[in-house]
Amino acid sequence: MTALELTLKHIAESTGGTVVGNDQILIKGINSLVLAQKGEISFLADPRLKDQIRVTKASALIVRELSSLYQAPQLIVSDPYLVYARVAAMFAPPVPRFPGISEKAIIGEGTQVGRDVSIYPFVYVGRESVIGNEVILFPGVYVGDRVTVGDGSVIYPNVTIMSDCIIGREAIIHAGTVIGSDGFGYARDGDESVKIPQTGIVQIEDNVEIGANNAIDRAALGKTLIGKGVKTDNLVQIGHNVVVGDNTIIVAQVGIGGSTTIGKSVVIGGQVGFTDHIEIGDRVMIGARSGVTKSIRSGEVVSGMPAMPHRLWLKTRGHIRRLPEYSDRVKELENRVKELEEELRKE
Amino acid sequence: MTALELTLKHIAESTGGTVVGNDQILIKGINSLVLAQKGEISFLADPRLKDQIRVTKASALIVRELSSLYQAPQLIVSDPYLVYARVAAMFAPPVPRFPGISEKAIIGEGTQVGRDVSIYPFVYVGRESVIGNEVILFPGVYVGDRVTVGDGSVIYPNVTIMSDCIIGREAIIHAGTVIGSDGFGYARDGDESVKIPQTGIVQIEDNVEIGANNAIDRAALGKTLIGKGVKTDNLVQIGHNVVVGDNTIIVAQVGIGGSTTIGKSVVIGGQVGFTDHIEIGDRVMIGARSGVTKSIRSGEVVSGMPAMPHRLWLKTRGHIRRLPEYSDRVKELENRVKELEEELRKE
Amino acid sequence: MTALELTLKHIAESTGGTVVGNDQILIKGINSLVLAQKGEISFLADPRLKDQIRVTKASALIVRELSSLYQAPQLIVSDPYLVYARVAAMFAPPVPRFPGISEKAIIGEGTQVGRDVSIYPFVYVGRESVIGNEVILFPGVYVGDRVTVGDGSVIYPNVTIMSDCIIGREAIIHAGTVIGSDGFGYARDGDESVKIPQTGIVQIEDNVEIGANNAIDRAALGKTLIGKGVKTDNLVQIGHNVVVGDNTIIVAQVGIGGSTTIGKSVVIGGQVGFTDHIEIGDRVMIGARSGVTKSIRSGEVVSGMPAMPHRLWLKTRGHIRRLPEYSDRVKELENRVKELEEELRKE
Repeated sequence: MTALELTLKHIAESTGGTVVGNDQILIKGINSLVLAQKGEISFLADPRLKDQIRVTKASALIVRELSSLYQAPQLIVSDPYLVYARVAAMFAPPVPRFPGISEKAIIGEGTQVGRDVSIYPFVYVGRESVIGNEVILFPGVYVGDRVTVGDGSVIYPNVTIMSDCIIGREAIIHAGTVIGSDGFGYARDGDESVKIPQTGIVQIEDNVEIGANNAIDRAALGKTLIGKGVKTDNLVQIGHNVVVGDNTIIVAQVGIGGSTTIGKSVVIGGQVGFTDHIEIGDRVMIGARSGVTKSIRSGEVVSGMPAMPHRLWLKTRGHIRRLPEYSDRVKELENRVKELEEELRKE
Repeated sequence: MTALELTLKHIAESTGGTVVGNDQILIKGINSLVLAQKGEISFLADPRLKDQIRVTKASALIVRELSSLYQAPQLIVSDPYLVYARVAAMFAPPVPRFPGISEKAIIGEGTQVGRDVSIYPFVYVGRESVIGNEVILFPGVYVGDRVTVGDGSVIYPNVTIMSDCIIGREAIIHAGTVIGSDGFGYARDGDESVKIPQTGIVQIEDNVEIGANNAIDRAALGKTLIGKGVKTDNLVQIGHNVVVGDNTIIVAQVGIGGSTTIGKSVVIGGQVGFTDHIEIGDRVMIGARSGVTKSIRSGEVVSGMPAMPHRLWLKTRGHIRRLPEYSDRVKELENRVKELEEELRKE
Repeated sequence: MTALELTLKHIAESTGGTVVGNDQILIKGINSLVLAQKGEISFLADPRLKDQIRVTKASALIVRELSSLYQAPQLIVSDPYLVYARVAAMFAPPVPRFPGISEKAIIGEGTQVGRDVSIYPFVYVGRESVIGNEVILFPGVYVGDRVTVGDGSVIYPNVTIMSDCIIGREAIIHAGTVIGSDGFGYARDGDESVKIPQTGIVQIEDNVEIGANNAIDRAALGKTLIGKGVKTDNLVQIGHNVVVGDNTIIVAQVGIGGSTTIGKSVVIGGQVGFTDHIEIGDRVMIGARSGVTKSIRSGEVVSGMPAMPHRLWLKTRGHIRRLPEYSDRVKELENRVKELEEELRKE
């Protein structure tokens, strides 16, 4: 797809590493140790894969320490995984662009469109919206009225962005995601649910990436806020008035109840659920499938259902499967104690 | 967005409340205590927010009891949250309408379209369907053949409604939802799965609201039925031949296995899972993340995995994290009993 | 919808069964015992429904053993459920076809389209893709560049298939599903997440059926692979570089972490979660809502959170709700043992 070739020297200079061996060789791609072909560079980020160095066909290797298992040039760096990310970005094919605004797209009255955009066929943009420079809107994207999409953002196919929402710069929103659907709010009137109009918005800050088929609800009043640098995986649910702090990572199928606040640089494992109206501090880590029903202070590491300190959960979960045994042992103890009591009473 | 202004008197008459103070003031919107600006009305529904009354800039307040913390006019009502819902509806911006049927929409042969509809560009409606009066179909909506969409329903962008399904009146279906996909049914023939044609339908009754990115499967035979007034949050899965009773509330990411019947006015917390072929009675309440593997009688309140009476779960879950301690205590008891036995035997 | 009528003899010959009674009667459809009307055939696959035979209006019955409860013709077969699947397929209405390629679809340069395709309006296909014979692409489908869709596959509305992915023959992909979104991969650089370009693909083999609103991520490098005959229910998440073996069944809302390998003919219950980088053997069965954090050997049957042998889980889960009682019993034992110790010490 690309004929790009870079010298190892150029790669080293761009990533701050040191080459051992011939730095003039030409590199045309990056791949895993097993998949790499001649002409590609590979990397050792996970020490458990060390043995694959013996069999790789890669023409150069990104490593933390010089490896004696490998004869070709090596690029020594402090964080091979991070350098892999940066080198892969050099070789990655660009997002495919439509030249300009398709005649088969619809742009509403009063909407401003920046320069160098790609607006594919079957895109619908409402009125009085602002589409920034170099934005890409793929087929089937719906953008409502008075929406802002910041410069450089990429909105993949069949994404829905409802009215008044704000998407920052350099955001990536994967296919099928819905931003700004109504929050789930009703007042009860006898048996009936009376809809509470959801008149707030969703604001997504810069450098956010949202996975496929997410649902992020607009606020009842005010805003649902996704801080800068947040990354969500697929099928994530974010309720109305939730705040997610900067640089937080949310793995697939997580659900966050309304008005819950998540701190900065939090890491949330897959399928975790949060009740509504709680507060999670900064740098909290939450194990996959945890059920979080209470606020958590900054820096804690929790897991389990109900969520508890992660180290306690590691101990606890082994005991769960021993419950039948414990039950038997308690029963037996009761028998033995009863016998002892009877013997003592007899005397 | 709206220049609507209503007197407090008008609001009081529409909602059945009593004004204390000047009922001639003009109200132009409703907002939370913290966000409200001059000219807006606010409300105290959650007593824990009482202190915010001191700082609100709202020009009037909806309360249950007259508050001495607040000097401006107060509207006394029996259920401030319900009145908030009703007042917010007065001020909420209407759903944006496309004037008529877009030339860029496709309406199949034999399909009847009612009056005052909004059919946006890039909508596809199949043959012999019926689109009721005042229906709104947003861009990217697909409606199959022989579908009925009742009067006043709003179908948001990129929703898919497969053939033969029936949507009632005043329904709201949020973006990305799929109605009438095939149920998950196979017969096994050795290692292979033989698809069972899913020839039933989905019927959604009046006043239902379905969240974003739901999936509601058509029946194998007969119908999957969503009763009137049901509300589902986002990313909900409803299997084939499920019946959901009237006015039931289903929070995000719930999954309901095939042929399970849910009663009326049930409340289901987020991420709950139901096995197939069970029956849940009326007015059951099910805590978030419960795993329901057995039928539940009307009126019960359950939680946990496996689901148990909610009060038992509240007690039980605290014990789970104490399992390592209990294990130690059982071990110690065994040692002490053994010692006692040896002492007695010695004598 | 169909005027098709088949003799019972024809049905018997097509499915390998034996008729008891008049095999010349005409059958015009198949339905459940309760829903069947005169002229339709029904079936008894679940012995618990036996009593419904007394009240069915069906004109013939598919059974394993001749039933004395029923007077009309019976078709005796070894697996009535499998025969139901096959007979239902004879009567099922065909997937509705658009005649050819709509003028309102877009087919990119260099893309090859086979014969007898149905490409509906508002379909977008990129460049240099290959669309096989008899493929059906419903409205709102997006197909990227260099994608292959094999012969006879049906892609339902609003599905997104990103560039370079491969869909096999006779695949069915339900509405709203996303194939080939970026995997969730970042390297950390201080607080920031540096995106790892996801340059691999998704490959889906022949006879796969993917439910509605799934998300199947493309590989970081190499491919995410869905083996032949795999069936997924709705809202399933499959991470990058996952391999799912042939004929595996995945129920709704399952999430599979990156690089995890699932064997062949595995059955995965609803809402199960798999951590990343583990291996599940062939013919494993995993109960609904299990949390799988370790590799599982072929043939095992597991359940629970954490996952354990299914029989152990069945025993264990009953004990969980008895924890408050056990706690009381341990406390009481401690008191009694203390008393015993004091009595002995006194002597």
